[in-house]
Parts: sequence; structure tokens; C-alpha cells
Amino acid sequence: MSVTAAKGFTAAGVAAGIKENGNPDLALVVNNGPRRAAAGVFTSNRVKAAPVLWSEQVLKGGQVSAVVLNSGGANACTGPQGFQDTHATAEKTAEVLGRGAIEVAVCSTGLIGVRLPMDKLLAGVETAAAALSEHGGEKAAIAIKTTDTVHKTSVVTRSGWTVGGMAKGAGMLAPGLATMLVVLTTDADLESEVLDKALRAATRVTFDRVDSDGCMSTNDTVLLLASGSSGTTPDYDEFADAVRQVCDDLGRQLIGDAEGASKEIKVEVINAATEEDAVEVGRSIARNNLLKCAIHGEDPNWGRVLSAIGTTRAAFEPDRLNVAINGVWVCRNGSVGEDRDLVDMRYREVHIVADLAAGTETATIWTNDLTADYVHENSAYSS
Amino acid sequence: MSVTAAKGFTAAGVAAGIKENGNPDLALVVNNGPRRAAAGVFTSNRVKAAPVLWSEQVLKGGQVSAVVLNSGGANACTGPQGFQDTHATAEKTAEVLGRGAIEVAVCSTGLIGVRLPMDKLLAGVETAAAALSEHGGEKAAIAIKTTDTVHKTSVVTRSGWTVGGMAKGAGMLAPGLATMLVVLTTDADLESEVLDKALRAATRVTFDRVDSDGCMSTNDTVLLLASGSSGTTPDYDEFADAVRQVCDDLGRQLIGDAEGASKEIKVEVINAATEEDAVEVGRSIARNNLLKCAIHGEDPNWGRVLSAIGTTRAAFEPDRLNVAINGVWVCRNGSVGEDRDLVDMRYREVHIVADLAAGTETATIWTNDLTADYVHENSAYSS
Repeated sequence: MSVTAAKGFTAAGVAAGIKENGNPDLALVVNNGPRRAAAGVFTSNRVKAAPVLWSEQVLKGGQVSAVVLNSGGANACTGPQGFQDTHATAEKTAEVLGRGAIEVAVCSTGLIGVRLPMDKLLAGVETAAAALSEHGGEKAAIAIKTTDTVHKTSVVTRSGWTVGGMAKGAGMLAPGLATMLVVLTTDADLESEVLDKALRAATRVTFDRVDSDGCMSTNDTVLLLASGSSGTTPDYDEFADAVRQVCDDLGRQLIGDAEGASKEIKVEVINAATEEDAVEVGRSIARNNLLKCAIHGEDPNWGRVLSAIGTTRAAFEPDRLNVAINGVWVCRNGSVGEDRDLVDMRYREVHIVADLAAGTETATIWTNDLTADYVHENSAYSS
Repeated sequence: MSVTAAKGFTAAGVAAGIKENGNPDLALVVNNGPRRAAAGVFTSNRVKAAPVLWSEQVLKGGQVSAVVLNSGGANACTGPQGFQDTHATAEKTAEVLGRGAIEVAVCSTGLIGVRLPMDKLLAGVETAAAALSEHGGEKAAIAIKTTDTVHKTSVVTRSGWTVGGMAKGAGMLAPGLATMLVVLTTDADLESEVLDKALRAATRVTFDRVDSDGCMSTNDTVLLLASGSSGTTPDYDEFADAVRQVCDDLGRQLIGDAEGASKEIKVEVINAATEEDAVEVGRSIARNNLLKCAIHGEDPNWGRVLSAIGTTRAAFEPDRLNVAINGVWVCRNGSVGEDRDLVDMRYREVHIVADLAAGTETATIWTNDLTADYVHENSAYSS
């Protein structure tokens, strides 16, 4: 159902020949209104791809008629020519849809530093426009895959209105090489300012807390489009909750499909002095390569958790720290706790709780283990 | 020659049975004077091992008569009992040498969260004391190895005085699980304040810029002991230069022996606005897992270098960045530069130059590639 679960949207996914293997590589999502309000969140990497620079400008207007997305090339670090390519893509899409180019957002994902095959891409836009359908959401989700092994979609329906979406990639603020792209749609009748508030609130506690490998893409984009075609204006809190729920679901799917991963690790930091402390500590644990290797080896190595906590500026006393792995408090008061042999590490999901004993705030960061498959996948990617 | 290259020092390395495989695991370095001045630099991890907490106190006195080092156990996160074990080790060493315990520094390395077998360790101190020799430097260097494949020593001799040392581990401020321990000795006749100044100046541009895997140990220790037995007081600049040279040599040996590495990567940041910017950018590049995988795959993936630079707060404009890999400027003005196929990646050493085009400052960070061997070594360590 994906981006076409909400009324007022059509979508398509086609093979334009951007990918050499002939797989689908171009997606189009169109908002047929009556409203065309939109909000967006983009990578905080200061080296931004051309489509991000373009779409940031588009979103300033608060109106998006269509999103055109391609896999097979990130169009990042491609200079002024790359920006012209993005602009030409928006112009072409606007032309075939009979809309204005400044209402067409563009997303790209794939290898950095390579120009897109524009003849194929622009022809693909025509093909995709001809294929637009109220049932095209799945195909669109499939066309944006890069190293993803499955396409990712999510839908939440409330009384009279729906939020749906699609995602690809392996993280955000810290994604894998494959960039995170997300398009969310809703038929709720809301202004762009409300969409923006709900989207930022949702991404802050979902995609921003998914940290697969500590690397930040040049292309990350999350868009939320509202058609208003349900004729319903939901209560803000209820709407924000639905958006958060879809983002949370998609974020979990990203972690579940992260490159080469064999474990999904939930890092829960509790009793922090501030939420910022909790996030900093969670992120430090989630990014610790030694711990990620240990988890891969099903080794409940709590010393590496403490070592990661120790590198942060968070408020804590070393001799008051407690750590649980899969429910066993293997570290108590900064020292040896319950028998580590009691920890059952056989399952794909691993739950680490870090108790800072310094307050009442909490945060959860999701990450993966570090595996030989990750190394293989990322050492052979562009060669 | 190691720590016994400088006159006035004896050392020993023995197998005390701390390691289950029977390899040497206890080293002793003794300063026989006439002077016993010393300085130390310790991990900035806030979770510090018992021997670090103890040795920090010892170094406050500026006097060290002996250093006792064990591999086979880090004595970190072992609570008050762990601290008592370190204290007992210093007391025993002091007793057999006829010195004061407050002049005995203690270093430990190995697994976190496990108490040391104190009966074996204390018996080993007696054995080591009986084996002390002016030729014991190599044996001491061998006894502190953990995952090191070779022992590391370095010596610089100037007119009438010498600085020598030994090291183990895979990094600092960001070391591998194996912790970095370094003991330097000199027969120059210098006060502890001068030693401290020279040691901090040296570590700031050597060990602090070696970043193998972004992880920071609980046990890192660098000690510099002066016996004064040459009777020579060198010029400060000349002495500081010799210390820096030994640290630089040992740091390069650590990177050369880092866990599972197949490439040594020199990340040189040039034309930065400040030295801090240069170090921040260099560290961000050195810690980027995707880049480290790409280098392992001999892929000159400059897009990942730009992506890493983009996550920093350093002064730069994205469209003025230049990147060279092994002498080929593959990225010019933030976009495609010379043909990446010209880059020869066959050799173990890889040289990345990141030109920020924002000033005149520079810094060099050394790191390694990320390999399947690293994952294997660190996923099977404690299980």
C-alpha cells in the first residue's frame, strides 16, 4: 500500500536503465490534491547532494505536487552539472504532469561522484508518468532499493484518514552507504506548518535514533505530503502519533535490513540526567566497533559498554553504572554483576540497558552488529 | 634495547601464569637512579581501570622507582577489590625492591571485568625482580603483548644521553581492545616538570593522532622515567624532539600491528583554518567505517571522504574541497577530479590528503582499514 494507501496519491516504479542490471530504478509519487501541503527533513551532512539542495528549496514553499526518486546514482559531489541534472529532472517531471517544477521534489541514491545518465532518466520519467496508479505504491517502494534486500512500507489508518509511507536504506544521520530516503503521504487535511511540526517531532525520536554504522549520507531525505482528500482535519496529537508510528515502523525495518547485519541491537539508556545525555551515551554505545563485534560473536562483553559510556560527557559516576544484556544485570555498580553465562544471545534481537543512575531521563538507539559481511559488502561496492 | 637502552635502568619479563597459555605476562622496569623523576599521561576515558587510578596518584609525586606491568587481565571495572589488587601489586613490588609503594606505577592490559589471579601475579613479581637485568628490555616488551603480533621498541641516542621505550597495543585515545601501554626511559638528568612538558607535547602529536578503531581504552598509560645517570642535562628542545621521535616511531609500530588490518592509512588534512579543525576532520575521516572498508577493497572512494568531512564543524566550503588518494587528485572543487583508475592501491600504505582550502594549518592522523579479520578477532576474544 505504501505511499498510495492515503487517498489522493498515485505512484509508479519503473526500470529506466539507470541501474546496469535492469532492476527498477525510478519512482514517481504524485499528490493529486485537493491540497498539496508538504514538509521535509534533510541530512545534516554539510556536503549535500544536488537533489537535497534542490528539494530544500522546493520545501521552503510548503507545496509539493510530486516526488521523483531514482536509485542507481546519488548525484552527490557532481558539481554545478549535477545540480543542473536535478533541475532538468524536476522540469521534465513538471512538464509531463502539467505542474510547476518548483513543486517537484527530487531524491537520488547510489554511488557518490558519478553523473546520472540523463537521457535514460528523463525517458524514465515519461514511462513512470504513464504508469501512475492508485495501486503503484509497492512498485515505487521497490524502485528506490539499492542494497536493500526487501522494500519497506508502512501504513497507519485512523478514523477517516491514513498515513502511509515507503523507505529505503540502512539508517539516518548515520546511514549506510545506501542513503535513507523516506516518502510519507497522508490524506488528512493539514497545513504545511502542522506537517512540519509533526514530521520533526517524529524523526527526532525515530530515524534520528537509528544508527547502523555511524556514517552520515549526503542524500538523506524524509518527505511528508498531505492531499487533504479525506476532508478530515485530525487532532494534532493524534496525527503526530500516527506519523511517529509510521516512522518508527520504517526505522525498525531499516535496522532489520542493514547491510551485512546479523543482530539488531536496542540500546536503552535509563536514569540519565537529561535526554541529551541519554542520546549521547546511547549513540556512543551504538557506534562502538568493538562492542558491535562482540555482539556479533554473541559475547555479552559489558566492559565495552562501560568503555563506551566513559568517552561521553554525560553526568554519571563510574562506580554507579549498571548494565543489563538481554535482561541479565552483568554489571552492577561499575563492576562484575550477575554471571555473564546466564545471558542468552542466540536470538537476532539484543537488548542492552545502560543505567546511568544520574536522573530520570531515557532514550533508545537502534543499531546493528559489525560483521564480516558488512566489510565484504562495503569493500566491493564501487570497484 | 627498549627500556634498558638508557643507563640506570634494569628490566625483566617473565611468565607468571596470568595468561592461561603460559606466555610471558609480567614485566618489571626499575629505575636505579640516581634520579627517579617521572611523568605520565593516562586515558581520558572516564571509566578508568584500577591501575590507572593508582598510577595517576603515584605520578602526582613526580617520582617513580619502578613500573610493574601485566598482560592477561586489565583489572578494569573490578570495583574496590580491583583497586586493592593493584595496591597489593605495588606493595609487593616495593617490598622486593626495598622502595616505597607510592613510587611504584602499575599497568594492566587484557580483558575488562575480570579480577587478576593475585597469587600468581605476586609470585611473578618476585620472579621478575630476581631476573632484573640491564639487558632485560626486550623481555619486558615481550611480556606486555596481548593481541600484538610483534613486540615494539624504539631508541634514540643523542650526544651523551638516550631515550628508549617499549609499547603494546593498537592505538590510543582510540585504541583497540588491547589497550596501549608505553614505558619510556631516559638517562638524561631532568626534573619531572620538564619530563611532563616534553611527554605531553610528544603524545599530543603522536599517540593522540593514532586512531585505529575509534574506541578508547580504560587502561591507556604512557610513562616517562628519568634516571639522570648520564649526568647530562640536555637542551629542552632537543630532549622534547627525541621523546617525540620515539613516540612517533612507537605509534607507527602500533598502527602497523593493529588488529586484523591490511592497510595503514595516513590521513593528512591540509589548508585548515585551525589545527583543531585539521584534527577534527582527520579523525572523522579516520573513523569512517565505510571509507575504511573501501580502502580495504582498494577502492579510492573519495565520496566517502567528502561525506566524512561534511559531518564536522570545521571551516570549509563544500565546493572548494579537494581530495588526493596516493597522489591522484580524484576530487577537485567538491566534484569529480582526475580519473580514479589512476590510483594505485596495491601497497600496504595508503595516503589520503584532504585539502579544506580554508587556511594554512595541517594535521596527520594514522589509522587502519576495516577488515573481516578485525571482526573475527574482536568477535571471538572473550568467548
